[in-house]
Parts: sequence; C-alpha cells; structure tokens
Amino acid sequence: MKKLINKPENFVKETMEGIIYAYGDKVKLLDGDERILLTNYPVEKGKVGIVTAGGSGHLPVFLGYVGQGMLDGCAVGNVFASPSAKKMADMIKACDYGSGVLCLYGNYGGDNMNFDMACEMVEMDDVETKTVRVKDDVASSPKETMEKRRGVAGMVYAFKAAGAAAERMMSLEEVAGVAQKALDNIRTMGVALSPCIVPQVGEPTFQIEDDEIEIGMGIHGEKGIEVRKMMTADEVAETLVGRITEDMPLAEGDEVSVMVNGLGATPMEEQLIVYRRVHELLNDMGVKVVMPHVGEYATSMEMAGLSVTIFKLDGQLKELLLSPAKTPFYTNLNK
Amino acid sequence: MKKLINKPENFVKETMEGIIYAYGDKVKLLDGDERILLTNYPVEKGKVGIVTAGGSGHLPVFLGYVGQGMLDGCAVGNVFASPSAKKMADMIKACDYGSGVLCLYGNYGGDNMNFDMACEMVEMDDVETKTVRVKDDVASSPKETMEKRRGVAGMVYAFKAAGAAAERMMSLEEVAGVAQKALDNIRTMGVALSPCIVPQVGEPTFQIEDDEIEIGMGIHGEKGIEVRKMMTADEVAETLVGRITEDMPLAEGDEVSVMVNGLGATPMEEQLIVYRRVHELLNDMGVKVVMPHVGEYATSMEMAGLSVTIFKLDGQLKELLLSPAKTPFYTNLNK
Repeated sequence: MKKLINKPENFVKETMEGIIYAYGDKVKLLDGDERILLTNYPVEKGKVGIVTAGGSGHLPVFLGYVGQGMLDGCAVGNVFASPSAKKMADMIKACDYGSGVLCLYGNYGGDNMNFDMACEMVEMDDVETKTVRVKDDVASSPKETMEKRRGVAGMVYAFKAAGAAAERMMSLEEVAGVAQKALDNIRTMGVALSPCIVPQVGEPTFQIEDDEIEIGMGIHGEKGIEVRKMMTADEVAETLVGRITEDMPLAEGDEVSVMVNGLGATPMEEQLIVYRRVHELLNDMGVKVVMPHVGEYATSMEMAGLSVTIFKLDGQLKELLLSPAKTPFYTNLNK
Repeated sequence: MKKLINKPENFVKETMEGIIYAYGDKVKLLDGDERILLTNYPVEKGKVGIVTAGGSGHLPVFLGYVGQGMLDGCAVGNVFASPSAKKMADMIKACDYGSGVLCLYGNYGGDNMNFDMACEMVEMDDVETKTVRVKDDVASSPKETMEKRRGVAGMVYAFKAAGAAAERMMSLEEVAGVAQKALDNIRTMGVALSPCIVPQVGEPTFQIEDDEIEIGMGIHGEKGIEVRKMMTADEVAETLVGRITEDMPLAEGDEVSVMVNGLGATPMEEQLIVYRRVHELLNDMGVKVVMPHVGEYATSMEMAGLSVTIFKLDGQLKELLLSPAKTPFYTNLNK
C-alpha cells in the first residue's frame, strides 16, 4: 500500500490537524473534537446554519467547504464511514444561530440514519432542523426510483446555493427550499479508471482491468452501470453528457454551470480535455455555460477517473452561485 | 496507457482549448496560437511584463498562473519539451507594455537556450528583457554547484513575488531583483512514489518498486538522490525539511511560507498529513508559517508524490506574497 501516511488509524486525525494548521483562519474544531469542523468566521445572529457530515476520504468534500458562504459545520467519520449521531447533534447545536439548521448531505444509509437521530436529539434542545438529501448521481438508480440515488460531487453546488441563501438571511424553510430547488436541477455521472485503497484496509476497493473503464461507478467503489473497453476523452464526455441530459433535458437558451471533477489521480490536463468536449456539446445545444468548475471537488483519495455535473440555473440560482464564498478549498471573488 | 485523452498528438492543443473555454475571462491565445497564452485582463501601460515558458504536463505550472498579479504570458511546448525560440519571442513582444519584460523560468537546457535566442530576437525590436532562472530544487545539485539546480514548484512563489512587484509599477531591474531575492530564499525538495506516462510515448518514464520511494526525483523523472524503502508521511516531512534547512538555515523568529505540492496522483489527505508534520517541525524551530499553500501547484500529470517548498520571507517579500492575484489556478483575496 503506497500511501504517504503514518499509522492508518491516525489518517483522519492527522488530516484534520493539517487542515487546522493550514486553514486555522477559516475553520476551527468544536471544543477540540478532531472530527467536528466549524467555521471560524464571525456569523450574524439569526443566520440559518448549514451543516453536512459523512465519511472521510473525499477531500475537498466535505471539510473543505466550511467557512463563509457555504457550510457552517461538518462532522466526519472514518474513511467512507458515517460519523455518529452524537457528533452530528453536537455540530448541529454549535451551528444554530437562532434560526435553525439545515442538514444537507449525501443520501447514504448510515448518514441518513445518524442524521435522523441527531435531529431528534437536538429537538429536545429546541433546535429546529430541516433535512435535504443530495441524490445527484444519475447512474446510481433509474429515474423511476430516483429517490434512491446517491449523493456525489453535485453536493458542492448545493452547499454553494444554500450557503449564499443563508448569507442573505433567508428563513430555514427558504434555505431548505433553495437547496432542494438547486438539487432538482443538478445531475452528476462519473467514470472510474482505477480503484482507491482505504488506509485501514490496505487493499484496493475493487478491480478494473488495465484496458477497461467503469461507467457510473460510485465514489466508494459502488458498482457502476457498465464496464467498457477504455474510451477516449471525447467518448467519455459524450456518454456522460448524454446520460445526464436524457435524465434532465436541456433546451436552447438554458444556462448551466458545469463541474468536471477529478476523482483524485486524474491530471488537470485530462480534466480540461474532457471539459473541452463537454463545453462543445453544450454549446452545440445552444446551452450557455456560466462559471465552469474544473478541478478536484469531491474525490475518492487516489482513485483515477472523473465526474461531470450539470447544474441548470434560473435567475435566483445563478445569483447564489456567483455570490462570494471563502472556505479552505473554495473561494469565490465575485461580488 | 490509461489516460482520459484523445489522440496523444492533440494532448496539448486540447488542454489549451479546455483552458480557454473554462477561463476565457482571465486568459486568451496570442492571435489564435494554441501554444501561447496571454493575460486577458487590462494591463496598465508601463507595467513590466512577466513571462515564462516550458514543457507541457505540469499544470497548474505554467499556464495556470497567467492573469493578473502573476504572469502576463506563457508559451508551452510538447509534454516535457521546450517551446521554440520563435514562440517565446512572439510572447515576449506581446507582453511588452513599454517597460520591458522579465523572463522567469526553470533552469533546463532547452528552455535556457531558446529563451536566450528569443531575447536576442526581440532586442532587434527594441524590447528590453531580463532573465531570472529558477533553481530551487535542492536535490538536483549540491550546494557548491547550485547554479546547476533545476527549477520546480518554488517557481510559483517567484511568479507571485515578481508579479506583485510589477503590479506596483516597479522597473524591470527592480522586478528582476525581487524575483532573484525571492529565489535566493526559496528551496524545494520532493519525493516520488510512482512514475507518469508521456502521452506520445505511452510508457512510464521510470520505474519505482512497489515498496520503494525515491527522494529528490525531478518533475520529469530525473534521477533523485536516493531510493529508500517506503517511508511514513512524518519521515518524508522530516527528511525534506531537514535537507532544505541544511541548505538554507532558518532561525527562531523567521517567517516563511510553505508549499506542500502534490505531484498529481497524491490525495489531498496525504498532502495535509505531510503539511501537518512540516508545520510542527517549523513551529518547534520557532519559525512562523505565513500563508501556507497545500495542493497541486506544479505536477507531473499522474505522478504520485509531493514536494515541500520553503520560502523565507522579509517584509517586502511577505507583502508581495499577500498581494491580490487572479489567475485560473491561483487566486488570492488578500488586499
């Protein structure tokens, strides 16, 4: 296992220490708890808090988006494992500024169960919560059962839209509404070229042959929808955009933001080559791309591959996307 | 060869197209030349131009730093190959705003030769130039022959300091002086865990055994100073900081910026775990870290590994580092 780590059991703790050392101006630990990260920016009283949680191993998801204009808090578990309900509850309480807290997270069994329990716990302390689950991964379930879909890179757009709505001092119900509206207009699909290794396991999570690519693989190595012989960058772009727009049709004149998200080991050059073709395909459809995102936004450690996310905008969502944000891994200058 | 590309011979062209589609607000091609990138921001007349050039395959180096407050232009060649002197000369001329142009680039044979020729060419058009070569890689030559050292990730700090000096309307001589002073205080050293594949070659550039790590390897796979059995993240941090501070001693009370630079395939978690130990080591020496940089700044496509750069600051260099910049891959909000 070729990883630049120390003891595998310290992987999460030491990652958190690195984050605090590097970004201590933007984020802090809750009472020294090495699994709960909070914003270190001053927060206006009455702002709706926004929190997320999930397994480690997906940086910049989720920790990298805590700060100003996106998330107020994030709790993490071990690699690919949900944190406890107790940690989530502590975080929710710490992010209640008087107007309640939105729990905005990926649709995975453990996270769902623990967040539900956490919300019940904080209710006893009179903290109001609302839940919006991210289900953007087109490949993870057919359209008829889209409520079963998993949450992947599209959650970053949801954090951004909801975060900007909260900064505008919208109510909890309104912020939850914005998050849901954003997610109704967000679709993601990815491909994987190589597996990753969970530090405490020490073995690849799955196998892909040297000349194969897996379409629709999940970010924890969940089985995709098809294994194919290696494809070109253009074929990957065409396949992913095709499946996404089949699920969420686009029309001439639409405005979208596009995210090409590297899963960890895929070079920026390749991300840009794929983005190039995605841009051309959308352009040919008469769809305008606003504020493209090309880079690593939601990874699976050293997995090779990438995902494409399309975020269909209306006037409100566009304005929220373009709003300023300051977090360790996402900074937006626009004002 | 598992790369998300199309025809290998189109790798550079299509990467450039991706950059223009994604970042066309910040950068543009010189007269449609797909190998020469220029800033798309308005430039004040009389500002010193700053340019660089080198082989492709190192994103964000170099193209990602063209914009405002860093580079005005960048010419690239094929993967790991220098662009021609003619392209460099065209770029230099396009980046002369009346006060001359600083050529700031890594110390490699082909780049040195072509830039020297390019500077002679533009002299005939009365464009004044100065040259500063980046030689920050401690492992590439002993201290007695440090003028032979190669340029690696530390060049990003030099781009930043020189770029901010030019924005302050300093003269060509002053901007070159700032770049040289910065570089006199910058040292880098890296480790590699796995090779990369040049698209048109299709074979790994070198081999490292499954249980080995190479200390001091260059970003094109140049031989390092030692191959060791796999080390922990802390051992890597201690080795790199040890060799760097042997070469450039630090004293209690010094201020530095630190860059932990992923070479391509190394996850952010691992970069942060190494940064954590670097931070502790400096802290133990009474050295204060200002504005740490953790991420991918200068890669070798899908090579696994990372480098550590230490940039020793004085008042002027610190101020220049903290100045604003806007480029595709480097944005600084501080004002």
